[in-house]
Amino acid sequence: MQIPIELDPNGRQSLQGQLFEQVRDLILSGRLRPGTRLPATRDMSRQLKVSRNTVLLSYEQLIAEGYLQTRAAVGTYVSPCLPDKTLFSYSAERDRKGSAERLPPRRRLAFTSRAQAVVNPNRGELAYDFWVGRPDAQSFPHKTWRKLLLRSLARSGSSLTEYRDPGGLFELRRAIAERLGPARGINTSPEQVIIVGGSQEGLNLVARLLLRCGDRVAIENPCYQGAAFVFDSYGAELEPVDVDKHGMDFSKLPEEPVCLVYATPSHQYPLGETLSLERRMRLLDWAWRNSTYILEDDYDADFRYNAAPLTALKGLDRRGCTIYLGTFSKSLGAGIRIGYLVVPRELVEPARTLKTLFDNGNPWLEQATLAEFIDGGGFDIHLRRIRQTYMDRRDVLIEALRRHFGDVNLRGLDGGMHLVWHLPPELPSATQVEQLARQHRVGIYAFEGGGAYVFPGAECADRVLMLGYSSLDEQQILAGVRELADAIKDAGPALSRSLGPLPDPQRRSA
Amino acid sequence: MQIPIELDPNGRQSLQGQLFEQVRDLILSGRLRPGTRLPATRDMSRQLKVSRNTVLLSYEQLIAEGYLQTRAAVGTYVSPCLPDKTLFSYSAERDRKGSAERLPPRRRLAFTSRAQAVVNPNRGELAYDFWVGRPDAQSFPHKTWRKLLLRSLARSGSSLTEYRDPGGLFELRRAIAERLGPARGINTSPEQVIIVGGSQEGLNLVARLLLRCGDRVAIENPCYQGAAFVFDSYGAELEPVDVDKHGMDFSKLPEEPVCLVYATPSHQYPLGETLSLERRMRLLDWAWRNSTYILEDDYDADFRYNAAPLTALKGLDRRGCTIYLGTFSKSLGAGIRIGYLVVPRELVEPARTLKTLFDNGNPWLEQATLAEFIDGGGFDIHLRRIRQTYMDRRDVLIEALRRHFGDVNLRGLDGGMHLVWHLPPELPSATQVEQLARQHRVGIYAFEGGGAYVFPGAECADRVLMLGYSSLDEQQILAGVRELADAIKDAGPALSRSLGPLPDPQRRSA
Repeated sequence: MQIPIELDPNGRQSLQGQLFEQVRDLILSGRLRPGTRLPATRDMSRQLKVSRNTVLLSYEQLIAEGYLQTRAAVGTYVSPCLPDKTLFSYSAERDRKGSAERLPPRRRLAFTSRAQAVVNPNRGELAYDFWVGRPDAQSFPHKTWRKLLLRSLARSGSSLTEYRDPGGLFELRRAIAERLGPARGINTSPEQVIIVGGSQEGLNLVARLLLRCGDRVAIENPCYQGAAFVFDSYGAELEPVDVDKHGMDFSKLPEEPVCLVYATPSHQYPLGETLSLERRMRLLDWAWRNSTYILEDDYDADFRYNAAPLTALKGLDRRGCTIYLGTFSKSLGAGIRIGYLVVPRELVEPARTLKTLFDNGNPWLEQATLAEFIDGGGFDIHLRRIRQTYMDRRDVLIEALRRHFGDVNLRGLDGGMHLVWHLPPELPSATQVEQLARQHRVGIYAFEGGGAYVFPGAECADRVLMLGYSSLDEQQILAGVRELADAIKDAGPALSRSLGPLPDPQRRSA
Repeated sequence: MQIPIELDPNGRQSLQGQLFEQVRDLILSGRLRPGTRLPATRDMSRQLKVSRNTVLLSYEQLIAEGYLQTRAAVGTYVSPCLPDKTLFSYSAERDRKGSAERLPPRRRLAFTSRAQAVVNPNRGELAYDFWVGRPDAQSFPHKTWRKLLLRSLARSGSSLTEYRDPGGLFELRRAIAERLGPARGINTSPEQVIIVGGSQEGLNLVARLLLRCGDRVAIENPCYQGAAFVFDSYGAELEPVDVDKHGMDFSKLPEEPVCLVYATPSHQYPLGETLSLERRMRLLDWAWRNSTYILEDDYDADFRYNAAPLTALKGLDRRGCTIYLGTFSKSLGAGIRIGYLVVPRELVEPARTLKTLFDNGNPWLEQATLAEFIDGGGFDIHLRRIRQTYMDRRDVLIEALRRHFGDVNLRGLDGGMHLVWHLPPELPSATQVEQLARQHRVGIYAFEGGGAYVFPGAECADRVLMLGYSSLDEQQILAGVRELADAIKDAGPALSRSLGPLPDPQRRSA
């Protein structure tokens, strides 16, 4: 018996591998039936013009994998126990295309939610991108980081091969806990610090820890998409709480009990407001009385320009209502993927257990390097430097917007990496300005494009633009705003008038 | 008015910081009431014997944070708007201890599950630790890894500061997809590869993607704890399927539909058996007919000693029923925290979305370095080297066990990083032997200690010991087994008899 096999001596795969695969596929497709005897290795080698050893090794592998069997005095044959029906259906499947359509219907997935966009899909087309929350790439402390990476590597021992504490490297937890006192007014122990892979994992961990389907979460309106979507994905009912110039307006907190309050007190995302001390204290009191946890997302609190950093909500909270979420994605870089939670004592064990079940902890090298960076003082030096850089950029942006657009209504200037521009009534909607700018290769963002979620019916919904200034240098900022002004001017009489006297509102919508 | 403040000139914190905190705490504790006028900065500086500038700066921060206000011709006073009630309760809370007891009852956490133990809690006490699944730390390719890390860093551009594709670095997904063909018989595209932070994140991701509370999951019995616990944590009903010497016994698959089958076909965890070809094909056929996904956890398939690597289940599956889960924790090191899923086309988008919601993706540096390591061929060279090392260690372990314990019943020898020893009836339970060994500073593991989960009533439940051999050198293996034999001999006549003729079963339990 000859079997239909063709080997390509110039193929990428070895002859032995080709022979193995072709025989296997003949068996799987049912063309070589169970029980069929195969040619002896000597005959096969002659037929294929390959060494007998090649055939022997292929046969051995086919035997090892169960496709073939040998029996003394009988030779080598296709395993008789392979299930016929399976082979047939397998063969039928192989020859058709577009298999997805013919799959039996599967059940709906358990997970059907949305996620935030973390990478700007239009980045490549933009000359000046005021994308929100991007650290300046040039300011990354490459030299120091490289040096500390190498030092960590030199001391790594078995750290690259072993699992470590899933709650995070102790040295890093200690460094963070020690720094939180002076930096954010938080007194905590390393045990209460859980290292996570950036803010988002922290949000996911807290959501999974606390939320059952149907639980209510009070959340800022507008708010960060990544938070709203992750709470929503667990079936939580989101209760929007409007944000005014003092931050989240707690007179609008729901009367019914909620399971969690999500807040960004230092620099509200996206509006940039700072939660006033009075509201901080009322919020803590309210949370205490209602047995509610507060999740304080302090995503860009390292950047505060006009005053000393505000004590974190967690720092004011002596009753353990607050879960604090910090990140190094803004202060250092998102590619490092390190954030941390500071949790009340009763949540330490559940949070560590959950982190273990999530992913057994984060990579060792970044943790070890970051711990050295903080301990050696390099992190605070780096922060001071980029804080000045970002403040200068913020000032250039404010000045440029004023020059081109007059007495603009800017908010969120006290800190962070972006400001918001409340558009005057004579300008079109934020989404329209965003699109117009994009056509001129300038990236500025209405809520959705900027990673913010707004509940239907919110007053400010489409009147606010977000402009991140941290990743553009001063020349780029100036040029970008100039380009934006040109874009609006070019857009025609209806829009250019908006820079002069108020237009007829009727005309605007035309 | 003098207020009770004492500054420590030798304190760790600046005088300004001390002053800020003490005034803040006096206000928060209610001892400085809203509306109270503070001493003028000049008086305060005289009282405290510090420079006026120190006082000025502290006051400025207190004003910035909302604790104090200034009014022309009145001076500086405690903000009148601070909520009295809050201050009182705050004060009451501050002075007591053990706050957890007096917290209002919080609702039960949504998450109440267990997690696997990834770090041996007794590691420090053990002289010879046969812990399962530990790569050899000495064999880690430190020099090459360091070189590639530095090369990646040199080319990093904005990779450390920016978010990247949450599904994983393209270069790594491509390298993995290309390698899976020759290595595991899997034809896939980089798009279907999702990078995760180790196997465990892959398990969690698949569970969250597919499982609703009450869904049924068919799972090997015994099985890997990390899988059983994560499925259980989503409320899934686990359907145990017994494992015999051909792997999972599918004649015992439940009749009722299940949502997912979890399997370790290459080297069953913990028993080490390889799923036979016949069963692989029957399983694929069964999954197809029942619209069920299979999660193939190929955790240590890189180590196969006596034959070419078996084609993965995913490689045999032409109908997209199989989700493949691979990891570099065994082949390279768990400290790297990189694994990957290969998902059917219809799951690509949901899986990427979920990964985004989980953690916005993994750190860049490990991914970039690993991609270079695979592409440059270093990974396969490394694998070949440690495969030989581990095979040699396996052989030494087998030989040592035979020498000391006679004709031992060892299984799971074809691959992986551990073998299992089915204890003869005359030896006590696996848990007892584990404890006995630990007293002699030898780590060998019954199911629970070894990270395996066994359903109640399983036949093999406490008759199996797991011995990992990959992280011990040959001398350590020999010494460890010798020590184990001594331990059993020392344990007294009841046990030492077990090495000779069969003891009276009645006596054994005494």
